[in-house]
Amino acid sequence: MRKKTMGLAAAMAMGLAPGAQADEGMWMPSQLPSIGKRLRAAGYQGNPADLADLTRPPLSAVVKVGGATGAFVSGDGLVLTNHHVAFGVIQYNSNPQRDLIQHGFVAGDRAQELPANPDFRLRVTTGFDKVTEQVLAQARGKTGRAYYDAVDAAGKALVAECEREAGYRCSVVNMFYGRDFYLVKQLEIRDVRLVYAPPRAIGNYGDEVDNFVWPRHSGDFTVLRAYVGADGKPAAYARENQPYHPPAHLQIASEGVNEGDFVMLAGYPGTTYRHRTAAEFADQVQWRLPKSVEVMKQLQGVIEDAGRADKQAAIRYASQLQSLKNGIKRFSGELDGLKRSDAVEIRRKDEDAMLAWLGKQPQARTLRPDIDTVAKLIANGNANRERDLLFAILQSQTQLLRSALTLQRFAHERAKPDADRETGYQQRDEELTAGMLKQVQRRYDAAVEKRLLTALLARYQQLPDPQRVPEFDAAFGRTPAELAAALDRVYGATQLGDEAQRLHWLKAAPDEAARSDDALLKLAATLQPALLRIEDQRKERDGELLRLRPAYMQALIAYREQQGRAVYPDANSTLRVSYGKVTPLKARDAVSYSPLTSTAGIVEKNTGVEPFDAPRPLLDAIAKGDYDGYLDKRSGVMPVDFLSNLDTTGGNSGSPVLNAHGQLVGLNFDSNWEAVSASWMFDPRYKRAIHVDMRYMRWLMDKVYPAPQLLKELGVPAR
Amino acid sequence: MRKKTMGLAAAMAMGLAPGAQADEGMWMPSQLPSIGKRLRAAGYQGNPADLADLTRPPLSAVVKVGGATGAFVSGDGLVLTNHHVAFGVIQYNSNPQRDLIQHGFVAGDRAQELPANPDFRLRVTTGFDKVTEQVLAQARGKTGRAYYDAVDAAGKALVAECEREAGYRCSVVNMFYGRDFYLVKQLEIRDVRLVYAPPRAIGNYGDEVDNFVWPRHSGDFTVLRAYVGADGKPAAYARENQPYHPPAHLQIASEGVNEGDFVMLAGYPGTTYRHRTAAEFADQVQWRLPKSVEVMKQLQGVIEDAGRADKQAAIRYASQLQSLKNGIKRFSGELDGLKRSDAVEIRRKDEDAMLAWLGKQPQARTLRPDIDTVAKLIANGNANRERDLLFAILQSQTQLLRSALTLQRFAHERAKPDADRETGYQQRDEELTAGMLKQVQRRYDAAVEKRLLTALLARYQQLPDPQRVPEFDAAFGRTPAELAAALDRVYGATQLGDEAQRLHWLKAAPDEAARSDDALLKLAATLQPALLRIEDQRKERDGELLRLRPAYMQALIAYREQQGRAVYPDANSTLRVSYGKVTPLKARDAVSYSPLTSTAGIVEKNTGVEPFDAPRPLLDAIAKGDYDGYLDKRSGVMPVDFLSNLDTTGGNSGSPVLNAHGQLVGLNFDSNWEAVSASWMFDPRYKRAIHVDMRYMRWLMDKVYPAPQLLKELGVPAR
Repeated sequence: MRKKTMGLAAAMAMGLAPGAQADEGMWMPSQLPSIGKRLRAAGYQGNPADLADLTRPPLSAVVKVGGATGAFVSGDGLVLTNHHVAFGVIQYNSNPQRDLIQHGFVAGDRAQELPANPDFRLRVTTGFDKVTEQVLAQARGKTGRAYYDAVDAAGKALVAECEREAGYRCSVVNMFYGRDFYLVKQLEIRDVRLVYAPPRAIGNYGDEVDNFVWPRHSGDFTVLRAYVGADGKPAAYARENQPYHPPAHLQIASEGVNEGDFVMLAGYPGTTYRHRTAAEFADQVQWRLPKSVEVMKQLQGVIEDAGRADKQAAIRYASQLQSLKNGIKRFSGELDGLKRSDAVEIRRKDEDAMLAWLGKQPQARTLRPDIDTVAKLIANGNANRERDLLFAILQSQTQLLRSALTLQRFAHERAKPDADRETGYQQRDEELTAGMLKQVQRRYDAAVEKRLLTALLARYQQLPDPQRVPEFDAAFGRTPAELAAALDRVYGATQLGDEAQRLHWLKAAPDEAARSDDALLKLAATLQPALLRIEDQRKERDGELLRLRPAYMQALIAYREQQGRAVYPDANSTLRVSYGKVTPLKARDAVSYSPLTSTAGIVEKNTGVEPFDAPRPLLDAIAKGDYDGYLDKRSGVMPVDFLSNLDTTGGNSGSPVLNAHGQLVGLNFDSNWEAVSASWMFDPRYKRAIHVDMRYMRWLMDKVYPAPQLLKELGVPAR
Repeated sequence: MRKKTMGLAAAMAMGLAPGAQADEGMWMPSQLPSIGKRLRAAGYQGNPADLADLTRPPLSAVVKVGGATGAFVSGDGLVLTNHHVAFGVIQYNSNPQRDLIQHGFVAGDRAQELPANPDFRLRVTTGFDKVTEQVLAQARGKTGRAYYDAVDAAGKALVAECEREAGYRCSVVNMFYGRDFYLVKQLEIRDVRLVYAPPRAIGNYGDEVDNFVWPRHSGDFTVLRAYVGADGKPAAYARENQPYHPPAHLQIASEGVNEGDFVMLAGYPGTTYRHRTAAEFADQVQWRLPKSVEVMKQLQGVIEDAGRADKQAAIRYASQLQSLKNGIKRFSGELDGLKRSDAVEIRRKDEDAMLAWLGKQPQARTLRPDIDTVAKLIANGNANRERDLLFAILQSQTQLLRSALTLQRFAHERAKPDADRETGYQQRDEELTAGMLKQVQRRYDAAVEKRLLTALLARYQQLPDPQRVPEFDAAFGRTPAELAAALDRVYGATQLGDEAQRLHWLKAAPDEAARSDDALLKLAATLQPALLRIEDQRKERDGELLRLRPAYMQALIAYREQQGRAVYPDANSTLRVSYGKVTPLKARDAVSYSPLTSTAGIVEKNTGVEPFDAPRPLLDAIAKGDYDGYLDKRSGVMPVDFLSNLDTTGGNSGSPVLNAHGQLVGLNFDSNWEAVSASWMFDPRYKRAIHVDMRYMRWLMDKVYPAPQLLKELGVPAR
């Protein structure tokens, strides 16, 4: 007799191939009726047809919050999202005298609610229409850059038309890598205020040590409120604005959930790559993840060093540092997970099987040549991958250089008619960009930025010749000494550290910036042609991929169909729904995690030292044990967080977790470490999502940092 | 409603005070009939009366192996113990050309069995008689040193009388800290041979990373064989010796155990402190453990540094390094555990309650003054604790200096009649000492020893004046420079590195060593008066404690009795029996460990890099999955190790774990990290013992490193 633990490969052999496992899937709402039988079998008590339209309740209560998710939870515009999603808002309102990060915040009444940073946005999806024909009409017959531009132009035209209505933001998204296109229309709320935030040591208890870890004990939630003008329409912050009355809001459940209970989640998962080719899986595991971690760790070290010496710098870079640490841990976990799941090999075998099956089908003749071209394009794109990675990090991890590049790009684009400008540099983008430029003030320190650039450009200087770019070599030299001199010179002779200067250049005439004698603007002007050239090359390839990848997807969908399986599109920041159940995790041999943590675990982990420095009021309340009405009925413990097998990815932060009746029981805020590879592969053995239990939030608001008026508005009054 | 996780304090309030929990207890065999009802209720299927006499089967099959435990498992003298217990034997037979540590060992037949290091001993207990009256007869009426000496002299006389029978070692042990004395008689087997050892990467898979960790995946076992002379009596190694035929041996069970099953264990637990005073608990937690860890870590660093530079030194100090690392982890875990269990506070409250109860009893008048004196003696002993700790470490962690001190002490003692000599320095001890002196050759390197001494004596030099000793100051100076010069001088002018020299001085005339001009012997002669003086002071205090502590124990036993609870004596390296069950562990909030690990976990942990470098034959066998007949019937997995709540401590390594029918199912080899504080306090929430599953051992011997002849002899032939 032979017996082994069933690996994913074995599971696949039994027909449980990736995509087939129960509970996998980030479904477009419109797909839900077609899988309604599975949904009801899983425990959903509502009518799946009610979930098909994201502009109707309950899905219309779900909002996009920055790059993440939240939900309306009261008729007067209260929005619930994660502490880490609203961290910028909390940070914006903090200073050494009034440290809301450290101490949390409870607005005593509406007058005390604090305005968010000016670029903070809530978006409510109000339209989602298929526009494939309109988008592709002019592209058909074209290739490469022309195909890309035609799709881009058609999309921009649709967006411009859509945005004629004031207060709305529109976008065209594509599903299945260019097969289908949708026009998304979103009401954009610009006056958002901070209502309730727990202290850092609750909202981010465990910080990096516990990040992506289960069991977890973090109260990662924050309450905001949406405001609109007196006319009920979106408006910039004004003291006299009124609370927004959303068309729908979620009701917090009176009871909680525990192991085995049905749960579902709606949110805006950012990006997944599950339908990428086998070659892309290999690149990700064998090069991109290890290299990115290496570079980001170096930048983390730079910021931490600087912060130790300078408290002001530490505060300014707190958000960027947190985001870097988050990224490092996520990428490392993704790498571990993909290796553990044997993703490269499994995807390769799956693709081989698909191609073998396709070979026997009539459509092979039309599809196969396109699929082969996709493979070639992907292979060619790897030639400059290290340079491209460094330039991308350079633009995301600097404040002032990024501002200068943005300003020069705006100047460059402003010469064109608005509709022809690059996405992100149109008139419609100026307000958001101005917000970013203002915010630099709170997030920039010249010494830190120079050290970050030194780290990145020293790597660039060591690249082999074919990856190097004349404009960059000219600007930064070829040696560390030349680089240091260049940075000192540029940062010593720029006025962009001044907010008024930055905002001035955003509004300046098209060719004024190009002629500026500000050292950093001049540097950006020097680098811009190179960046535009690289962008052109990328668009040429992207255009071809956009044109040809649908052939790959068409083959895959057909292949899955004959396996009896539905295919959801890879995540792309559009509203998706997943469902599953509260699920324990067997992480390793003989190690099991139960799906509900308790306040006892907060005390167990507490060391008194950050990040395990639970505030005294919380510890006192736990010692007092006054949990009346909040305990988990089945286990008798006071819940903190819970674990489910819901299909999530980045962007799902803050997603409402609903019970079988559609009531709010949790707030998604993380994945477990074993599951961060799920953006590429859903492995049902390990994929879990981590949620704040609403009972913990309510108990905190009732007994620890009381906000009775808020609990009343949430429909769950203090006990 | 209020509800909290029940802590130990709460458990105590409910009557589950320390000592009361089911399954706690290291019982003297003679106590077992009196708790027979509990034993049967727990699942034991035999007659508890059969366990009362440790000279009859099954307990007579249990042997003492060095400072640990083993058991006879065949009629021809096979002994099963841990890989780490027999590590010295494996190391003794290893060299760079034939590395048994790395590759393991399988004796093809009896002729290939390899002799152990000469000082390796097996001891079979054949007598255990109460001798309290004989021991205390001359001591009564005396105090302090005189009391100590009278007890010592009476004990030695009993031992000398007992050891008149050739081949036996005897000792007098005291139970309940001086209340009862027993004469232990043990047959001593001196020819022990290595029969079967797995490679290090199986026997010690996970090494320090997994040490004290559950889940565990180590095959920590080794098979030895006992040999005797042609006359059937113990003899030194001789090729022509014959296998020993023990009076009893254990039978390996055909099936294994799993969660909830009854298990029991017999062995030689070294020392526990559970009945120590509250003040001693406080000293242990607040000073002794943290300080010991600090010093040992420093020595670990010294040895590792040296080993990196010199492979020969690395091999020579492998055993000492392993023991240091073991100690550091154990002490750190003990400290964490005692804090987690709130041991200082609980013991203090327990003692306060006992004293309060005692105050109302008639015996308070006689007991209380003695108990108060014990408290004073303990407080006074703390004045020189740092110096005493350093001197103790200095003598245990050096090879040549320890040899020199031992030789001088022998010379000093040899002037007295044998019966009056200090224990450890009598004629009977010479052979064992000679073995130690021989073994120095394989464990000594001058450069390493000087660096170890430098670390320890630099600490000594910084002690405040009252703790310093003139002889040490004179010998090593008062500054680092003087210390370095002294060590260079002494180690440059000693011949003790030569084995013949060391053995010569052991046999030399009494005053010859004192007059030696060997630099190290001269140093030892200089230091000896100081060490003797310190020893005298300790004995004076120990004598008083020996005289008075029984009053404390008498009060405690009476106090427990009225609570309805039996008291077992603290462990003292005598044979004890504990019973319990295979038990999972809820280590932290939401984290559960199941009590059985599987071969799948070996693969999960494997990195290919030490200590997770499972040998290729093992990995191949796991991949092949040929487990026929060895799988756990209930879970369907191939077992490796299992977890129980058996009451164990250091010395229980290698203890046989028996099922309800007294058959061998496991071999104890470790505790979990959460339980290493159990030598002071048994906390049933965390106390677990870790055992090798006999099914794993049998599978390794059958399929991976086959030894069919051995399996046949063990009564469990290959499948």
